[in-house]
Amino acid sequence: MELDAILEGGSDRDWRTIDPEETEPVRFALIGLGWFTRGRVLPALEESRLCDATVLVSGTAEKAERIAADVPGARGITYDDFRDGVARDAYDAVYVATPNALHLDYVETAAEFGADVLVEKPMERSSDRARELIDACDRAGVELMVAYRMHTEPSVRRARELVDAGLIGEPTYLHGRMSQRLLDRVNPDPDQWRLDADLAGGGALFDLGVYPLNTARFLLRADPIAVGGRTRSTRDAFSEVDETAAFEVEFPGGVVASCFASHNASQESAMTVVGTEGAVTIQPAFFQDEARGLTVSRGDGRATIQLDPADQMLEEFDYFADRVRGGRAVYPDGEHGLVDMIAMEAVYESAAGGDEGRRVELEPS
Amino acid sequence: MELDAILEGGSDRDWRTIDPEETEPVRFALIGLGWFTRGRVLPALEESRLCDATVLVSGTAEKAERIAADVPGARGITYDDFRDGVARDAYDAVYVATPNALHLDYVETAAEFGADVLVEKPMERSSDRARELIDACDRAGVELMVAYRMHTEPSVRRARELVDAGLIGEPTYLHGRMSQRLLDRVNPDPDQWRLDADLAGGGALFDLGVYPLNTARFLLRADPIAVGGRTRSTRDAFSEVDETAAFEVEFPGGVVASCFASHNASQESAMTVVGTEGAVTIQPAFFQDEARGLTVSRGDGRATIQLDPADQMLEEFDYFADRVRGGRAVYPDGEHGLVDMIAMEAVYESAAGGDEGRRVELEPS
Repeated sequence: MELDAILEGGSDRDWRTIDPEETEPVRFALIGLGWFTRGRVLPALEESRLCDATVLVSGTAEKAERIAADVPGARGITYDDFRDGVARDAYDAVYVATPNALHLDYVETAAEFGADVLVEKPMERSSDRARELIDACDRAGVELMVAYRMHTEPSVRRARELVDAGLIGEPTYLHGRMSQRLLDRVNPDPDQWRLDADLAGGGALFDLGVYPLNTARFLLRADPIAVGGRTRSTRDAFSEVDETAAFEVEFPGGVVASCFASHNASQESAMTVVGTEGAVTIQPAFFQDEARGLTVSRGDGRATIQLDPADQMLEEFDYFADRVRGGRAVYPDGEHGLVDMIAMEAVYESAAGGDEGRRVELEPS
Repeated sequence: MELDAILEGGSDRDWRTIDPEETEPVRFALIGLGWFTRGRVLPALEESRLCDATVLVSGTAEKAERIAADVPGARGITYDDFRDGVARDAYDAVYVATPNALHLDYVETAAEFGADVLVEKPMERSSDRARELIDACDRAGVELMVAYRMHTEPSVRRARELVDAGLIGEPTYLHGRMSQRLLDRVNPDPDQWRLDADLAGGGALFDLGVYPLNTARFLLRADPIAVGGRTRSTRDAFSEVDETAAFEVEFPGGVVASCFASHNASQESAMTVVGTEGAVTIQPAFFQDEARGLTVSRGDGRATIQLDPADQMLEEFDYFADRVRGGRAVYPDGEHGLVDMIAMEAVYESAAGGDEGRRVELEPS
């Protein structure tokens, strides 16, 4: 794997196992019609040949039907309708993008109905509830994937190929960061669920920190063995959850990833792996619609490859459909997601009380 | 201060206070003729109009004289000669680039002779000895500057101007890293002093970690209030000192800098400040002879300005001469350097024993 292969690889769907032309699309019930579902998921599914949005589920029939009116072939129903099995024949899988603490409820229902599940990250408000979510899918024998869109982001996959090929030698250190101005630029509502500890479970760490954490795991093909970190809030709106989290993740062999997440810093993201022979950086790394820069340095040379932004939700949903239709297991499954939940809870443990930042060991999963 | 001003500013010596044409050069005794002095300092002084190398001091007369033979107007003497006051009339100041644990001895001697002092960083092998070094200079009334070449590196000064001007809003987070392959690429000698705890006092943290630590302080104009970190060694050569250090530095207001230093990773360096309105990155940041990229992002815009490499030693020595000849205090003085020594010792304290990585508070200086 060399640079020319990256350029050639570009945004190839190297994960593809089935022919979209010979496959029935996976029909989705979308649960939770917030801005992300409306602005990101619906447009992606309109483009997809592997997925269809057929059922839209929201709090009121009015909202669900209003949004469904713009989606050909879709119908809108309420959360109660969904629980009652309304339109069950119209979907094969569910996508859950509600506030974190509601994931379990909808996933349990979907699993009981035998529908496969794509659930947003973080999986739930706690690792205990994430465990219950996994168990519900296991009992029902349905597929469970956690929506880590970095796993199918072309720049991240190309970076992993470089690491795998040894181009940067042995990884020694990683740095990842993701920040945005939640209140000032994304959503000014002081009552939004992301600021509510009961609904969200965590703040910047859960919302943004999970990106560098999980992407570090993905790039290294390894799971953390210990973490440490500190959190901070400067504004009243962040009295229940962390506005900012700076944390370190230790991997086997002493490889350390230092990570940063903030709801009160400029929209910025980057992910770097430094190895014994070189380094690779993806910047911007995590937000959607930004052209990716993939910078590889080795010896005295440094090359930056610009990659057009991929439609991350299209890639993610199509990957899910590829695995479900192809009868293959998904990579970011429930157990994979649970590792992040446990690691993030350990960061909060490290950040709390005395000896803030102390190393907290994680039990082998 | 806007981007066009940076381009215009380029490598301006905005710190200049005196006219080189109307100033007698500062004559230096260079103490310690290792590769850095020979390869970096001597060529810089040859270029300088403000400084001259007049006395070269090394372990043997043979080595000192051999090197002096190539330096017009310079003579070579031994360490013992230096202590005996040989050639005292030939220098106004000393530059000390010996192993860390020998700094104090030579600085004390120089101070007793009334010579001003430019001493390499880290100042000594411990904060206690750094304190003694400061006291010796204070007693003698000579200038003491710690050789932080980042303070006169144009890209760092331009970045600081951007931060000062509020272009990135309020700084929230910093990330800095510096790594090299000490044994494999720089110096293969397993007996070199940098690997000897008695002579060096510390490993990657002292040698490389001091760059992001000090540069973060310089960019923020602030001193750390707490640190935490972890160290690691994978090879026998690093049995006495750390091969790698990952550490966090907390500044007032909860601003955190996550830093990384390694003697066993690819030559890489970067320094980023993320603020509420934007971010600025210097990359490469710390090694010499590398063209600097200064990247500023704000809103949807991102600009990278390439700056030609400055001769960092020339800038640093000339700054010292400017301050000494102009009768003005140096910015990176002994007390400034001591803050880094104390912070780095606190990182080692955090990294040692139980609760590795725990927050260690620093007493206000």
